[in-house]
Amino acid sequence: MKELVPDARTLHGWFDRDLPPVLSVAPGTTVRFATLDSGWWAGPHTGGDRRRVPEHTDGAGHALTGPVEVRGARPGDVLAVRVDDVVPGPWGTTYAGARPTAWNVRLGVEQPAVVPWEIDVAARTATGPVGTVGLRPFLGVMGMPPAEPGRHSTIPPYWHGGNLDCREVVAGATLYLPVPVEGALFSVGDGHAAQGDGEVSGTAIECPMERVDLTLDVRPDLLGRPLTAPVADTPAGWVTMGLGDDLDEAAAEALDGMLGLLGALHGLGRSEAMALASVVVDLRITQVANRVFGVHALLPRDAVR
Amino acid sequence: MKELVPDARTLHGWFDRDLPPVLSVAPGTTVRFATLDSGWWAGPHTGGDRRRVPEHTDGAGHALTGPVEVRGARPGDVLAVRVDDVVPGPWGTTYAGARPTAWNVRLGVEQPAVVPWEIDVAARTATGPVGTVGLRPFLGVMGMPPAEPGRHSTIPPYWHGGNLDCREVVAGATLYLPVPVEGALFSVGDGHAAQGDGEVSGTAIECPMERVDLTLDVRPDLLGRPLTAPVADTPAGWVTMGLGDDLDEAAAEALDGMLGLLGALHGLGRSEAMALASVVVDLRITQVANRVFGVHALLPRDAVR
Repeated sequence: MKELVPDARTLHGWFDRDLPPVLSVAPGTTVRFATLDSGWWAGPHTGGDRRRVPEHTDGAGHALTGPVEVRGARPGDVLAVRVDDVVPGPWGTTYAGARPTAWNVRLGVEQPAVVPWEIDVAARTATGPVGTVGLRPFLGVMGMPPAEPGRHSTIPPYWHGGNLDCREVVAGATLYLPVPVEGALFSVGDGHAAQGDGEVSGTAIECPMERVDLTLDVRPDLLGRPLTAPVADTPAGWVTMGLGDDLDEAAAEALDGMLGLLGALHGLGRSEAMALASVVVDLRITQVANRVFGVHALLPRDAVR
Repeated sequence: MKELVPDARTLHGWFDRDLPPVLSVAPGTTVRFATLDSGWWAGPHTGGDRRRVPEHTDGAGHALTGPVEVRGARPGDVLAVRVDDVVPGPWGTTYAGARPTAWNVRLGVEQPAVVPWEIDVAARTATGPVGTVGLRPFLGVMGMPPAEPGRHSTIPPYWHGGNLDCREVVAGATLYLPVPVEGALFSVGDGHAAQGDGEVSGTAIECPMERVDLTLDVRPDLLGRPLTAPVADTPAGWVTMGLGDDLDEAAAEALDGMLGLLGALHGLGRSEAMALASVVVDLRITQVANRVFGVHALLPRDAVR
């Protein structure tokens, strides 16, 4: 198996189509990634003595590992990212109230909170001063650079992936992304040991990932249709993702994707798909944390027989 | 057990504090309600020969059964509605695309669809031309009249309940509502045999309810705190509900309620509650169907140990 660890060669804090790939693989290859936590921290939060890894530079976004060229991938293709295994590192951190955003002020979250967590992979728990919670690890960022040259922030999610922060894309899921650039140039980071729908404080349990095995494949379409926004086939069911400047727009986008998916899966027209969606599809808030808002629509597995 | 069936005495299509109660009960009483479907239909959709019950009047909203006076309930109290049992009737209907709303136009839902369902209570399924789905029955409307005199529409949800359309309030749940008027004057209707989060077409599987057993109780507060918006303790976990003119506002309201609940349950300040919510609380879109938008925050059962 090909392996990539976060080091001076692989670490980057932005998306850029001109960043040379550090690995080139044939479609169908499994790559074992390790990642730093999103903040480039060298170790757990232990009070005042925390430091970032030396590769961190001012203005960098999430600490990403990559990019990986998937040979033959071309704009308009679909990159299929099968999540085979996700093993978080031993520690994580959740932040709240760091800045007086309108959201924080409205909600009375006025003091910064830094919550450290110890992660027990065997017990599948994370324990911090606010309690013990179950692990549900996934990567917040899996994506490719935009077609436009130059450095692009890792913060907002894009139609071709990136900081999607969708809690359903756990081991066993396959994420389908529209390919924006030749060779895909795929990077990952932003490990989350657990996160609720919404990522309401702006961070999950931000953790390094010891090991994330991803099988990268390329196909011309998904279910016979071109892909224009992220879709995932997850243990919970099919997920279509919507992005927007507010939740209303993101919800409409997510539902638009789901109506198309229901058409492809069950041969329904838009109106029948809308009726069925009203009965079985769940609209959930993916994240409110990253300038661009996210809503995903979930068609639970075996919801329609 | 006290029983109320939908008839000329109990049926009404609006909330009005001056509508005389048809039943008066002591706190702690279980009432067995039956309800029409939301549209006052006399029977299943069988093509062109459908008719409404004679009690239907122009301008009426959902067909409600009630009102029930809960003796001693006063404004500022909390009405606790324990859902003991919910048994749908044998048929239901889902509608989509009936009107060219901005939502329908944006989503390409331009043809009206009327989807009939046969409900099999024993098999816990509903079967229609779009497939077979699982039953998950609940009442879309459980509420009380506003304090202001006059007729009030049943369509928008209110801070004191009504058309909340929250799919988590199934049998086993207890819904807590702030009491707006003396005696509570509680009414129910809008049976849903199944509904996804979002109720995206504007209707669920709209069905009559054969039998809904609700135990109505009154308490001065919830977890030692005054209640200002609907909260439910459900089989899935605690739910706080937010209402707003858009999804962003509704999401903030739902999260505001959840931060308060986390404070009461786990002794956390706002910032620590925000951090914990980011890790374990799910923000879900309740409904986009009723002029006022709804988002609910779910704290899954046993999420924090």
